[in-house]
Amino acid sequence: MTATATATEPQTRLDFQTSPDRYRHWTLSFEGDIATLVMAVDPEGGMNPDNELKLNSYDIGVDFELADAISRVRFEHPEVRCVVVTGGLDRVFCAGANIPMLSGSPHGFKVNFCKFTNETRLYIEDASENSGVKFLAALNGTASGGGYELAIACDKILLVDDRSSAVSYPELPLLGVLPGTGGLTRITDKRKLRRDHCDVFSTVAEGIKGKRAVEWNLVDAISPLSKWDESVTKMAREIADELPIRADKGVELTPVAWKYEDDVLSGKFVSCKLNHDTRVAELTVTLPDELGPKSEEEILAAGADWWWFQLLREFDLCLLDLRLNFSQIGLITLRVVGDPKVALAADEIVMDSMHWFITEVRHFAKRVLKRLDLTAKSLYAIADEGTAFAGTFLEMALACDRTYVLNDPDMPVNLGISDANGGPFPMSNGITRLETRFLGDPEQPARILENKGVIDADTADGLGLATFAPDDIDWEDELRLAIEERASFSPDGLTGMEANLRFAGPETMETKIFGRLSAWQNWIFQRPNAVGKSGALKCYGTPQRPVFDYTRT
Amino acid sequence: MTATATATEPQTRLDFQTSPDRYRHWTLSFEGDIATLVMAVDPEGGMNPDNELKLNSYDIGVDFELADAISRVRFEHPEVRCVVVTGGLDRVFCAGANIPMLSGSPHGFKVNFCKFTNETRLYIEDASENSGVKFLAALNGTASGGGYELAIACDKILLVDDRSSAVSYPELPLLGVLPGTGGLTRITDKRKLRRDHCDVFSTVAEGIKGKRAVEWNLVDAISPLSKWDESVTKMAREIADELPIRADKGVELTPVAWKYEDDVLSGKFVSCKLNHDTRVAELTVTLPDELGPKSEEEILAAGADWWWFQLLREFDLCLLDLRLNFSQIGLITLRVVGDPKVALAADEIVMDSMHWFITEVRHFAKRVLKRLDLTAKSLYAIADEGTAFAGTFLEMALACDRTYVLNDPDMPVNLGISDANGGPFPMSNGITRLETRFLGDPEQPARILENKGVIDADTADGLGLATFAPDDIDWEDELRLAIEERASFSPDGLTGMEANLRFAGPETMETKIFGRLSAWQNWIFQRPNAVGKSGALKCYGTPQRPVFDYTRT
Repeated sequence: MTATATATEPQTRLDFQTSPDRYRHWTLSFEGDIATLVMAVDPEGGMNPDNELKLNSYDIGVDFELADAISRVRFEHPEVRCVVVTGGLDRVFCAGANIPMLSGSPHGFKVNFCKFTNETRLYIEDASENSGVKFLAALNGTASGGGYELAIACDKILLVDDRSSAVSYPELPLLGVLPGTGGLTRITDKRKLRRDHCDVFSTVAEGIKGKRAVEWNLVDAISPLSKWDESVTKMAREIADELPIRADKGVELTPVAWKYEDDVLSGKFVSCKLNHDTRVAELTVTLPDELGPKSEEEILAAGADWWWFQLLREFDLCLLDLRLNFSQIGLITLRVVGDPKVALAADEIVMDSMHWFITEVRHFAKRVLKRLDLTAKSLYAIADEGTAFAGTFLEMALACDRTYVLNDPDMPVNLGISDANGGPFPMSNGITRLETRFLGDPEQPARILENKGVIDADTADGLGLATFAPDDIDWEDELRLAIEERASFSPDGLTGMEANLRFAGPETMETKIFGRLSAWQNWIFQRPNAVGKSGALKCYGTPQRPVFDYTRT
Repeated sequence: MTATATATEPQTRLDFQTSPDRYRHWTLSFEGDIATLVMAVDPEGGMNPDNELKLNSYDIGVDFELADAISRVRFEHPEVRCVVVTGGLDRVFCAGANIPMLSGSPHGFKVNFCKFTNETRLYIEDASENSGVKFLAALNGTASGGGYELAIACDKILLVDDRSSAVSYPELPLLGVLPGTGGLTRITDKRKLRRDHCDVFSTVAEGIKGKRAVEWNLVDAISPLSKWDESVTKMAREIADELPIRADKGVELTPVAWKYEDDVLSGKFVSCKLNHDTRVAELTVTLPDELGPKSEEEILAAGADWWWFQLLREFDLCLLDLRLNFSQIGLITLRVVGDPKVALAADEIVMDSMHWFITEVRHFAKRVLKRLDLTAKSLYAIADEGTAFAGTFLEMALACDRTYVLNDPDMPVNLGISDANGGPFPMSNGITRLETRFLGDPEQPARILENKGVIDADTADGLGLATFAPDDIDWEDELRLAIEERASFSPDGLTGMEANLRFAGPETMETKIFGRLSAWQNWIFQRPNAVGKSGALKCYGTPQRPVFDYTRT
């Protein structure tokens, strides 16, 4: 039972922060309102030196840079209206995830790698939807597997017509797995290919090229090699010209000071104590005492040092750290402490602002909260003395599986409601956390929003915001038992359960990717036909041919 | 790689047909417009004599009887307006799926068992929606796991209030698996429990009883033991009184002659040749030469002998046989042969009829077509000489992953369009197969429906109904290669791919059950924490405690 267990302390802790000057695999350049993001993966630059990253195939390190590049465009370059994503190798756009890396990784890492790449592709789409920047995938050569999945996360796809370059999903025929980075979902629900064309495309290893790729809506246009540069420029220009410019000067994303020492992950506002023996992480968000910058000008001047933004960036790093570096942690207890009034005052500024930078930070907050929803660890929100689950920070509590609120007359506990709870932070299912919580009582979110401001524990409980609200006498025992019990359950059972319970109600492309496609991929990643000694994923690139158990389930 | 392989010929072929006089586990009785369905599972009556079916726990044989009972009510007892589903054991309603049975079954069987039980629960809900019969779960004792999942498939739930009887999902805490028979999906999306209540309910093995069960909407009402019979009768009466009576006399469901001989499954209209070496089943539906009964009266008089109904019943049996008895078959090639005009003429009668029996058969057809969509085998529709993919039978082709249409001037091939393609047979995603196919071109279904009547191969191809339409010269080679290739792919990869590609567009509770919940359950059913030597499912009922690898994925 310990085959896939990792040490309680990671041997090499992944670092998620990077910057354009440190990229090994991408080049991000700017010319007026058009940015160009060129993928030229350094074969020797993988996270694991044993895995040569051939043909622009990627590992998670390549994707950290991609995620960073998108952030740079959103925050540092508001003048950009179109990002051209293209390949820097001859005849190759991108060959997808590196197979030896995938094949050699333990199950849990495979799953978390896929989740991160999925979140990054959705981050591209979120930028397109909300940041006034569109993405053009300029496929200078073949885009296969994850390479094509990256392309369909973009708004438009231009494919070179050179008789050999194709788009393809070779996963099923060659590897016995799925195009799992949203690939199957996006051909059906975004590009809306005809259903039987989806079937053919996903089973033809060599892919589809030229006119047929356009006819089937796999790409938007093709261009002969002789006119390639001209066609890319023209298409990028057309895309850019349809969009307004957000601003002419951006905000620099300075590095976040984030460390791991003495079993504690910490930054300035976020700290997380890891109890390796009990597998519980105690995550605490501490609000500043003062509101700090109040006007849009002051906030812009503060930039990445604006506490609200920095706090969220730390929180995001903490979630990634817990997911990818501490796989044994099963339960996160979450506290937000400070003055709820500070949280609510910040929301007053943030939620109403049309300023490009504040808007961008608001979308960043939305993404961080979604990352919390999608974190495969149990989440208990704990509201005891000093709590400040208010507004945006109440969303953190609403993302949790349960909320424990201390309800004792001698120990006042205050939460808070703001406009942040009424719309700006939809979950992956497209509705708010309050709407999801009260699916059976659609009027309740509106009733809760009538209580804007600080509310006491009793009110919070009455409004249905507390799962349990014990008094001081029962508090400690009840919490301790709930924590011990949770940490004792099957981690797989919990992951499956939470994936089903957290997203009630409507489904979106996003929930289909994480709920349906990923679940099937996880299943396949566990099957001997993929990962067994003679499985397709194991045999790929070796002289051995896979041997299948043909039992259909 | 052969650990879970089954023989090419089943040792004991499951028989899906039964009738009330042969039930071992249920009693179906009638009193006016109220039917009572009592579960009293014979502990010694399981499919595998080694598994004692204690405490009203069920195996697939128990569920065959349940599915049959629902059919009997729908067809044989149109006078029934309310079905009371209750337990026949003291203090026990139903303990869910039998754990030793589940634990001892190979992976593929577990998955297919769950799929069948899911289809049966949805069959109850379909009856409630379309047959004017509502279901009352009268929980005379504890309903745990699949027992409560059966209850929430009913319209109303009454729980006895005796201080001990509860409703519960003990799967996660005791077995490390999910309430996978729609259980998690129905508490979120049907009963719409508050999200944190879902979490608590699904982790408390002893369940929830009394007033809290009502407050959380787990049940609709409770009744003291002293007034139990009276309460059940009253509630059933209230339910029945709100509904119209469909008819006073039903149609007997006589047994279908269905056999397996010389590698061929066959009835009167459906036959299926099993090629065990190539893992391909050649399924052929043969239409009668004549339309047969034309008026509603003639059809009612023909009853279960009406060819259209009998054909569908055979087709349904064939699908179940292929799924549960022939797990090595990976690809079904589907032909419908005969005169398309007969198919279209039958549709003229069936689609417009308001007659209760014909309506009921139409809903049965809908269910059979959904069963085809949900069959985890690859499906190729083959339209060559003599084909009759028309109307309802065109739906069969549209359910397939691909359609091969012979398009040769010397060999006329005719398909056909009818009202059957415009609405009466929605898929699990709530839209028609044409709408799903043409998600990217929403006007196309209407354009196709303008071509009602017989259409030739060229027209079919032009309308986008053929995936490939080769002429006679290429036909055989192209088909042979496509079949060989398909049968060579990873069966798990295909299952995952098809589960994602077949249901584009909107999601429903049904697609969430099959696409999301089932996929996670399948994953868990493959994980060592559940099925390994020290997994929770294996250890349950033994002195050994499960040992988990706590790595979170």
